[in-house]
Amino acid sequence: MDAGTGVARGTVVSAEDLEAFLVREFPQAFGPGRPHSVVSVGYRTATVRLDASEEHLRPGGTVSGPALMMLADVTMYVALLGQIGLVPLAVTTNLSINFLRKPPPGAILADARLIKLGKRLAVGDVGLRAVSGEDLVAHCVATYSIPDR
Amino acid sequence: MDAGTGVARGTVVSAEDLEAFLVREFPQAFGPGRPHSVVSVGYRTATVRLDASEEHLRPGGTVSGPALMMLADVTMYVALLGQIGLVPLAVTTNLSINFLRKPPPGAILADARLIKLGKRLAVGDVGLRAVSGEDLVAHCVATYSIPDR
Amino acid sequence: MDAGTGVARGTVVSAEDLEAFLVREFPQAFGPGRPHSVVSVGYRTATVRLDASEEHLRPGGTVSGPALMMLADVTMYVALLGQIGLVPLAVTTNLSINFLRKPPPGAILADARLIKLGKRLAVGDVGLRAVSGEDLVAHCVATYSIPDR
Amino acid sequence: MDAGTGVARGTVVSAEDLEAFLVREFPQAFGPGRPHSVVSVGYRTATVRLDASEEHLRPGGTVSGPALMMLADVTMYVALLGQIGLVPLAVTTNLSINFLRKPPPGAILADARLIKLGKRLAVGDVGLRAVSGEDLVAHCVATYSIPDR
Repeated sequence: MDAGTGVARGTVVSAEDLEAFLVREFPQAFGPGRPHSVVSVGYRTATVRLDASEEHLRPGGTVSGPALMMLADVTMYVALLGQIGLVPLAVTTNLSINFLRKPPPGAILADARLIKLGKRLAVGDVGLRAVSGEDLVAHCVATYSIPDR
Repeated sequence: MDAGTGVARGTVVSAEDLEAFLVREFPQAFGPGRPHSVVSVGYRTATVRLDASEEHLRPGGTVSGPALMMLADVTMYVALLGQIGLVPLAVTTNLSINFLRKPPPGAILADARLIKLGKRLAVGDVGLRAVSGEDLVAHCVATYSIPDR
Repeated sequence: MDAGTGVARGTVVSAEDLEAFLVREFPQAFGPGRPHSVVSVGYRTATVRLDASEEHLRPGGTVSGPALMMLADVTMYVALLGQIGLVPLAVTTNLSINFLRKPPPGAILADARLIKLGKRLAVGDVGLRAVSGEDLVAHCVATYSIPDR
Repeated sequence: MDAGTGVARGTVVSAEDLEAFLVREFPQAFGPGRPHSVVSVGYRTATVRLDASEEHLRPGGTVSGPALMMLADVTMYVALLGQIGLVPLAVTTNLSINFLRKPPPGAILADARLIKLGKRLAVGDVGLRAVSGEDLVAHCVATYSIPDR
């Protein structure tokens, strides 16, 4: 973290600015009382937490597949914005997810890592795990198209 | 449709029973006032409609990526249940989606087709289009694991 | 087919020019005595045939997975070149394939269809089947990056 | 490595037995004078090296996409056999690969890691890199179906 700016080493946006941007862009997902929160942003990485509310749950308290897909997508997006700045037009072009285990009840953490950051395309993978465990519950690879700047 | 049973040719469940099952299993998604509805179920196919509510929309009225992913997933599930019956334990193991165009405002239709129906695994693809257009807005391939019966 | 040019309706390259290009670019794959041949090229579609030689076979005469992946990739490439012309720098960025059934012995046909043709990206799907059957043996979705022109 | 058996800790097959099995099953790929060789097998991991011969190269000495797909597939297979033993009927059901950078000339290393090893399905990811560099040239996720034992 560079003193005075709040921008973590290797990133171009402070976590605060990123969070404020997400609250504006995804008001149902981020913000006070909302289920998603940014845990950390680093050099080509990000971790986002999902405290699932009723709408994300299946019977038994398990987080649903679509909620895991959305969490993976948004975590990749956070890792990308940490590198390229607040570019609202970056769009997901492909997302592939493997569901590995039924998640135990409770919050989910998603750890994203960019494996390519090109001029036009960014690719990353995301591991999703329960806060209460180490095994991955899902694993995702996604591609983003980056607009000309 | 076989007279008297409501079960379409080549399927094992009537659309009514399927809808009732979905309302029980996904109460946030299906049922009166809910955004998803089964349009049709046929031999290895299904069509589901999404009338997106506020929570599925991005600024500009465009349906969000996660909402499209969920629609694709649920449509494949409907096509599968039409073949194997109401097996609640069939689970998505892999889902890969390409986002092709920004959807125009309005309802989205998803057309799923099973391309393999094995004892353990089913694979299908899903084309997603706006009711107001012909071009695909997204295309998805998904795999389901079928429990031993 | 426009009389005199050999260019099929809705494409910009004649099948002859395309084949000649492929022989130059993939000399191990196309050309006299080589296993791949272009069957047809149409508007956003192409069909390529693989007469597998020893190197593509597994014990029992079954075409190997990597040979099917290569066939899918090259068929998409042919469909794309039929639309954008002989652009050797178009590159595959993502390829996802599901292996559905063990192929019976004999030649394999791949039918590709572009589902998006943008300025920067093209996406298509490919169904692979034995000449002796109708069931798909594999199904593939691939994305190509198109260089600035 | 357990003294006397040659079986690495956390695996059930010695590298020698695994190599001998691969030479039998993929005679074009493994063995003296063949391009693929097992570098290491560990707990849920494997590394395989490709010294590309003429048939794997594109103009400029770059390893072709299909050669990278095959390398990724076989490396996952090696990691899996290290865990479940020499089960020739394990088959790839899905393979998704992102091509990230043009590989520099020279050998390619593939590092596979199983992220799920279930009774019926195994899932893993594979990073492919040039021996001369650190950046990934491709990244792959694959699923194998494991026969009943």
